[in-house]
Amino acid sequence: MKTQMYVVGVDIGGTSIKAAILSEEGVINHKWEIPTNQAEQGTHIALEVYRTIDETLANSGLSWSQIKGVGVGAPAFVDTDTGYVYESVNIGWKHYHLGEELRGLAKVPVFIDNDANLAALGENWLGAGKQTRNLLAITLGTGVGGGAIVNGELLSGANGTAAEVGHMTMVTEGGAPCNCGKNGCLETEASARAISRKANEAADAHPDSLLNEMRAHNGDITAKDVFDIAEQGDLHSERVIQEVTDTLGLAIANMAVLTNPAIIVIGGGVSKAGDQLLSPLRKAFDTYALPRTSEACEFRIAQLGNDAGVIGGAYLVKERS
Amino acid sequence: MKTQMYVVGVDIGGTSIKAAILSEEGVINHKWEIPTNQAEQGTHIALEVYRTIDETLANSGLSWSQIKGVGVGAPAFVDTDTGYVYESVNIGWKHYHLGEELRGLAKVPVFIDNDANLAALGENWLGAGKQTRNLLAITLGTGVGGGAIVNGELLSGANGTAAEVGHMTMVTEGGAPCNCGKNGCLETEASARAISRKANEAADAHPDSLLNEMRAHNGDITAKDVFDIAEQGDLHSERVIQEVTDTLGLAIANMAVLTNPAIIVIGGGVSKAGDQLLSPLRKAFDTYALPRTSEACEFRIAQLGNDAGVIGGAYLVKERS
Repeated sequence: MKTQMYVVGVDIGGTSIKAAILSEEGVINHKWEIPTNQAEQGTHIALEVYRTIDETLANSGLSWSQIKGVGVGAPAFVDTDTGYVYESVNIGWKHYHLGEELRGLAKVPVFIDNDANLAALGENWLGAGKQTRNLLAITLGTGVGGGAIVNGELLSGANGTAAEVGHMTMVTEGGAPCNCGKNGCLETEASARAISRKANEAADAHPDSLLNEMRAHNGDITAKDVFDIAEQGDLHSERVIQEVTDTLGLAIANMAVLTNPAIIVIGGGVSKAGDQLLSPLRKAFDTYALPRTSEACEFRIAQLGNDAGVIGGAYLVKERS
Repeated sequence: MKTQMYVVGVDIGGTSIKAAILSEEGVINHKWEIPTNQAEQGTHIALEVYRTIDETLANSGLSWSQIKGVGVGAPAFVDTDTGYVYESVNIGWKHYHLGEELRGLAKVPVFIDNDANLAALGENWLGAGKQTRNLLAITLGTGVGGGAIVNGELLSGANGTAAEVGHMTMVTEGGAPCNCGKNGCLETEASARAISRKANEAADAHPDSLLNEMRAHNGDITAKDVFDIAEQGDLHSERVIQEVTDTLGLAIANMAVLTNPAIIVIGGGVSKAGDQLLSPLRKAFDTYALPRTSEACEFRIAQLGNDAGVIGGAYLVKERS
């Protein structure tokens, strides 16, 4: 009887590491999480990832010989050929050979790419992307991430910074400071954090507003709050959403004029707003995009949620091994 | 003796069609031009292109059996798989099967792509691109064109509008009208025509300026004039160059954050300004690009001039036949 083979997907985040054992078709058999150990610039992570997979395999009655490979996403600039990490601000890595370490421990093929790229691969394989050859994926979370597939392949670029779309400059003068050192990045204008900041500014400016009332009650205003009370007809919240979707629509239109995608997938926490986000976003996009570019593409909300990364990891193994 | 084989490159423009017979290594043996016949929505062009090649081959003592293929660039949205032209505003084509017509006449493989894409291929093969796997090429002529190579392949996109970077929206309110129907496109802010328009505006606002004096003398102010008198220290011209390179630097930074190129080639008439253009452009780019994206890439002036298109055509034949 032929031995059943599996793949392992790993999605390394700043606070937790998600892992899964999947079939070669991308079906998740088992998934789990461990906390991210950021001690000593994250240099324990390779060993801890290896150990947690090793234990889980043993507990599942599987052996490494049944693992075709491990596909890993990391919030980092990565040399995708070797799995060498140039830098990860979130984890603390700097010139860390994650690929070599993991390969040395696991003795199976290991492939590493940027986490947002892997999420794009996952969504394109089994989620909202429908296996198109030209996709843009935008993740609106605490920050703004991106992944691009062109001619059927992930766009990695010259030194692993392709699709770092959160750092498109959208405000050239007086923009909010970004973690990257610049000001006025897309991330400071259209992330969950940006929506919260703008809502807090609106609450400051309008003490009688529902926004300010909510803040007094909850201590803060989250992006979700903004969408919730906009739905109740609050004009200040609607204005924040209008401003954010206008900037985001402009940014995506300018990306689309370059890569001409068939599908644009919007994921991350903010995407849970669904049509409340997509409808003004599409309108702004159509204002700024070349009509023919606009005709070619469809906006869709991401479907795989937090599993996109590990499923993308499985795809990476499938494609590259 | 093995028959020497050749390729034909054709670059169809709005006013003239450039053609060349090249070796398989891209060396031009013979090149010539014919006027573009725009009569009847450009439907005579396929036959005229065939005939001019046929005559030139005969005059050169060559036969079609020595032609490996014809690579054609057209100022159009093209289905690069078939050579079907969706539309060309400049030529008048709309749903014109240029590829099929030319193949039917020439009985050799014919490959068609967008003219700016072909120029990018040409520059990358034998010009400023040095065969990098990740290149952006920007052509600053009457309009602004672009071509992008990613993962070693030309970016074509979902419906042939990839790298239409002249239509990135750079001014969201009150921008100048563009031929595409939108306002405030990169083309209306950074083309030769845009530089001339901005200089004329400056001359209107400053009747005592050198710009206005030059206009009174020459009847107009060209982009070349602006660079020439800026070099003589004229502040109004310098301000125009500053504004244009700032917008262009922002646009290219936002493209580069998406595709992460190793080389950015600037071509077209405006690129003849050389360092007078590149120096402020690079400065603006570095202000707006992610530092790591900026580190990865080098700006270079295009090297092949008007031959980029036919050389790109030859490369298309080499790659795809």
